[in-house]
Amino acid sequence: MEIIVAKTAGFCFGVKRAIGMAYDAAKDAYNTVHTLGPLIHNPQVVKDLEFSGVFAVDCIEDIKDDSPLIIRSHGITLAELNDLRTRGISFIDATCPFVKRAQGYVKELSDAGYFVVVIGEKDHPEVKGLISYADSGVKVVSNEGEAKDIPRKKRIGIVAQTTQSLDNLKAILSELLPRVSELRVYNTICNATAIRQKESIEIARKVDCMIVVGGFNSANTKRLTRMCKSLQPNTHQIEMADDIVPDWLDGVERVGVTAGASTPSWIIEEVIKRIETISKR
Amino acid sequence: MEIIVAKTAGFCFGVKRAIGMAYDAAKDAYNTVHTLGPLIHNPQVVKDLEFSGVFAVDCIEDIKDDSPLIIRSHGITLAELNDLRTRGISFIDATCPFVKRAQGYVKELSDAGYFVVVIGEKDHPEVKGLISYADSGVKVVSNEGEAKDIPRKKRIGIVAQTTQSLDNLKAILSELLPRVSELRVYNTICNATAIRQKESIEIARKVDCMIVVGGFNSANTKRLTRMCKSLQPNTHQIEMADDIVPDWLDGVERVGVTAGASTPSWIIEEVIKRIETISKR
Repeated sequence: MEIIVAKTAGFCFGVKRAIGMAYDAAKDAYNTVHTLGPLIHNPQVVKDLEFSGVFAVDCIEDIKDDSPLIIRSHGITLAELNDLRTRGISFIDATCPFVKRAQGYVKELSDAGYFVVVIGEKDHPEVKGLISYADSGVKVVSNEGEAKDIPRKKRIGIVAQTTQSLDNLKAILSELLPRVSELRVYNTICNATAIRQKESIEIARKVDCMIVVGGFNSANTKRLTRMCKSLQPNTHQIEMADDIVPDWLDGVERVGVTAGASTPSWIIEEVIKRIETISKR
Repeated sequence: MEIIVAKTAGFCFGVKRAIGMAYDAAKDAYNTVHTLGPLIHNPQVVKDLEFSGVFAVDCIEDIKDDSPLIIRSHGITLAELNDLRTRGISFIDATCPFVKRAQGYVKELSDAGYFVVVIGEKDHPEVKGLISYADSGVKVVSNEGEAKDIPRKKRIGIVAQTTQSLDNLKAILSELLPRVSELRVYNTICNATAIRQKESIEIARKVDCMIVVGGFNSANTKRLTRMCKSLQPNTHQIEMADDIVPDWLDGVERVGVTAGASTPSWIIEEVIKRIETISKR
């Protein structure tokens, strides 16, 4: 059985950077450091971080000692940032620089009087952070259908969640264009995501089975799975190598492996080993 | 035979306005007035204008007397405007207000440092006028394929020829989006054109023969013909009622009639009469 592994599978720049900063902080602090929500959407990595002294809290109120807080790569809302400052909690900002830039665009568009449309998932922390930078007149739209609800506007400014697909952004632009005089679009889709999606789709086209590795609560992994499944129905999302059901590989000549942005390389390696073991039976 | 006539067929606001201004000027001048190129792309109307004293010249140098010049609805280039001023030629600006606005957007985008992409036909006078308002870094793109030649740019500003189709604009946006950080789009497509195209397409879908009336040198009429022909192969562009070949209507139960922006209502009425006459034979 041939195994085609996406070169772009796994950790993106922003996640790699945030995790590095967290481990470093835990080392420097010789103690506990906190993150607001899990640092990344991968339970295995979260466990390893806890072992090193990096613990997730659900909200700022849960921080009871003076250990530093790591702002994760998704970023936080402006209100949360102000709250940290007011409470005098020391923090290390590991917001992905691409997310930071997108936050700046939301503020710029809002200040310039545009109605801001953020393309993304309403409940995703990155999106919550993004929209917090608009003073008023902001709406989250996750697909073409939701874009239909945006009323006619003179000027619309668009910023995308960094992990969105380009096709979704295109479709939403096409939907909004007829009802607007001016459309100002910041293409804030991260290249890493786009390139990973493109490579994964190309692999899905030529294999008999596609394995997508990543946390079941990771939005970008779920999107990657949906995209691959539309081309290859025998596509499965797993979190760990042990999740692979051997039946999936029955009669399969070529299997593709890709992984979401929050999947570390050691998990991908375990997955490849497991596939090799199953194929040799 | 049922005849369905597009409500939006014929003269648009800008053309109606320019023709009115030309006839008024000829009356006021008690003499000849000039237009730079034919006032509209309809030979029949041009003939009637000549009868009233409105004559087209090919270039500014051709104006030998002190009779006033009408700037037609398409507008002129900034160089031509400056030339008129330098030569002290009196002129009446009948540039369509929507085209005027689009010229302003090209200047604004160019001044703000955007690479300007004008969606339209390179040789169309409106487009020549539009691009003349960009200092540098401007390119005309007529379709998706040509958009592929635009290199990666940080900031692209887009302005459309007012008679472009929304679908073409959408396709070009989708093509450019992946290669740009910021895309600022002024939707300068005139509603009259869009609504006329939409209504014509709806009619073309439900008839057995479609007649599109308008000058053979009119870009918007040719586009209308192409759109209708893609849905109803028995689509024909004509300039005058006499151009109708009776065979086109053989066995036809429903015929649709639409007309480009430069077709006067009297020509449309003649076309309807001719169809009625043929259908009664």
